[in-house]
Amino acid sequence: MKNCVIGQSGGPTAVINASLCGAVCAAMQAEDIGHVYGMVNGMQGLMSEKFVNFDEIIKNEKDVNLLCNTPAAFLGSCRFKLPAVEDKPAFFQEAFAILEKHNIGYFFYIGGNDSMDTIKKMDQYAKRVGSEIKFMGIPKTVDNDLPVTDHTPGFGSAARYIAASLREIGLDSDVYDVHSVTIVEMMGRNAGWLTAAAALARCGKGTAPHLIYLPEVPFSDEQFIEDIRSLQGIGNVVVAVSEGIRYADGTYVCESACSGMKDVFGHQYLSGTAKVLENKVRTLLGYKARGIEINVTQRCAAHFASQTDIDEAFAVGAKAVEIACMGISGHFVYFKRISNSPYEIAMEHCPIELVANVEKKVPREWINAKGNDVTIEMINYLKPLIMGQPSLTLEDGLPVYMRLNKHL
Amino acid sequence: MKNCVIGQSGGPTAVINASLCGAVCAAMQAEDIGHVYGMVNGMQGLMSEKFVNFDEIIKNEKDVNLLCNTPAAFLGSCRFKLPAVEDKPAFFQEAFAILEKHNIGYFFYIGGNDSMDTIKKMDQYAKRVGSEIKFMGIPKTVDNDLPVTDHTPGFGSAARYIAASLREIGLDSDVYDVHSVTIVEMMGRNAGWLTAAAALARCGKGTAPHLIYLPEVPFSDEQFIEDIRSLQGIGNVVVAVSEGIRYADGTYVCESACSGMKDVFGHQYLSGTAKVLENKVRTLLGYKARGIEINVTQRCAAHFASQTDIDEAFAVGAKAVEIACMGISGHFVYFKRISNSPYEIAMEHCPIELVANVEKKVPREWINAKGNDVTIEMINYLKPLIMGQPSLTLEDGLPVYMRLNKHL
Repeated sequence: MKNCVIGQSGGPTAVINASLCGAVCAAMQAEDIGHVYGMVNGMQGLMSEKFVNFDEIIKNEKDVNLLCNTPAAFLGSCRFKLPAVEDKPAFFQEAFAILEKHNIGYFFYIGGNDSMDTIKKMDQYAKRVGSEIKFMGIPKTVDNDLPVTDHTPGFGSAARYIAASLREIGLDSDVYDVHSVTIVEMMGRNAGWLTAAAALARCGKGTAPHLIYLPEVPFSDEQFIEDIRSLQGIGNVVVAVSEGIRYADGTYVCESACSGMKDVFGHQYLSGTAKVLENKVRTLLGYKARGIEINVTQRCAAHFASQTDIDEAFAVGAKAVEIACMGISGHFVYFKRISNSPYEIAMEHCPIELVANVEKKVPREWINAKGNDVTIEMINYLKPLIMGQPSLTLEDGLPVYMRLNKHL
Repeated sequence: MKNCVIGQSGGPTAVINASLCGAVCAAMQAEDIGHVYGMVNGMQGLMSEKFVNFDEIIKNEKDVNLLCNTPAAFLGSCRFKLPAVEDKPAFFQEAFAILEKHNIGYFFYIGGNDSMDTIKKMDQYAKRVGSEIKFMGIPKTVDNDLPVTDHTPGFGSAARYIAASLREIGLDSDVYDVHSVTIVEMMGRNAGWLTAAAALARCGKGTAPHLIYLPEVPFSDEQFIEDIRSLQGIGNVVVAVSEGIRYADGTYVCESACSGMKDVFGHQYLSGTAKVLENKVRTLLGYKARGIEINVTQRCAAHFASQTDIDEAFAVGAKAVEIACMGISGHFVYFKRISNSPYEIAMEHCPIELVANVEKKVPREWINAKGNDVTIEMINYLKPLIMGQPSLTLEDGLPVYMRLNKHL
């Protein structure tokens, strides 16, 4: 009987551990699987043989609930880009030797588009050398930018937190009888899904956010100033923007505030778009202005996760185990939406090549013609994803989360 | 029979409407009070006779619950500094003429230290001209910097949100196996109460936040760098700082990033402390660093308010009405702590002069000797204030809040 190993990779989400938990529970129950291991810090932990055994971690229903409600990668994560199989076969020889040594027959990796590249390459190598190990990708990303799948686990919780925060910021910004502009910045380099979720905050005519700008449409300072000017009847204007909005020539709006640094995948670090726009409003219109960055809390606020998202994240993890046990490898589990109302999804799977390194952007037709708001199609798409308040375990008034001491 | 009028002033909190609701409910039930009015945008609304009648707003238990759970000032707020009584008696003549015109016998104002200055001056004038109108102050401020009272409504909810966010940021920052420093900035110009609440996030040895800096102790770059260096065993260090930390010579740490603007009370607008420290860590230590500003969400996140705070805010509003009906004026209602465990408070009242324009800072003995953490006394003080998750009314997955269209 073969063992299985599960890893987490890329940025944290509020429900990435629910997927981990779903995969662990399914693997523990699977007749064909022996021990269930976790790699500490993803591929990095595999290469240094840093494993945990889930027999010692998930002992009862209480542990399952705690892990499902814990944000950020429980096992730790990494940003580890694998070489191409033909460039560095020695790397894969080493990795597979470690897998064989621990009698691993199943390898699950929970991550976004960069992480799916890992599954793709490991599976390529397995097929090349005739290894029987099954490699399976489990989707995760707050950005919702994976192709094929209707949406990704992690996004619904981030969307719910953003929508509630925007509703609260909308009330907060509206207390004084002055003309003001509040610019709220969400994550999203190239895809505007998270920023679009701000639209869910609206609770009646004229309520925040009043303008929404996504990276999918080129940004124009002139249009922005004109858009705000046209809203003079609204005292306190709230604007939702993606960190990655850029001008028609491709330069980022935040460019002046950018550090210019890039991560290992070559993505530029962005921040400060709201602050840049705050200054433009103040200078060009003379209005009171404030820039707010929602920051990492949007991806880790498990205290306001979506229960739908948690349930789906768990299910997709369990499904990956089921499919791998059927002998399938190099695939990715995804959601297909059957209907919006009542909300219904099905889980399917497809070859990882369709997903790895591909980004799904917001369709242009889900953004209005002027490029300063989303359409009703987007609202209908988003609504079911944020349903349900999780029942958290509270201690001294605060949520209890599960913790692995990775530094031991 | 006399009517009463209630106003809200200063910055928003998550429970300022619970105090409003407590005062409204008590006034509606009081035998000596006729109509219950609200001033729209505080003193500004009084002077322009912009009133609402609560008979049309609070009709049943459901309305009471909605208003109690709604963040930010429902009636709108203002930053309106009254002149000294001797400088501009004409202003007070005008204000009192409006009060007489609407047959007002009771005037309640919910606010922080600046707002209590309004109650003080209005009461001074009433006594000078022999007016029978009773003026009563109801405490509110996320900053917890009002004297006399054990704590202020609004603070507990902000503290709970900060503690949960810090716990989540702590997990988020710890996923990668690198050495990093995350600096989280809380509100607090001169008083470090909100930043101290970050300490509640800890859930075991070595968990975030690892360092806490309050404005009550002069900040030193050298000590800060030394403090971080001494934590090398901890992979990802999380630091909590107040926006208002400053050097021994009185200059703010954020000075270089400050706009230099001041509000009408002469307070300097502060922001960017976390970003300034992020750059120092990167430059002086070469570590990966990230600055996060919790921003206005800490004062308006009603989705994670403290039920204890909501209950107390309601009670203090109702108590103010009870005291005014006893014929007392120019007073302020406050909390006296009877015991920590079990937590028990009493409500008392005192002359407003003891409160207006006075700031309560964190006692030096509740900060450790090194000035980089709080003591167990602070933890014991904070703990009871963040208990209880409010039962929110959810619609489409989001909290429903009550809204007044103030622009009509």
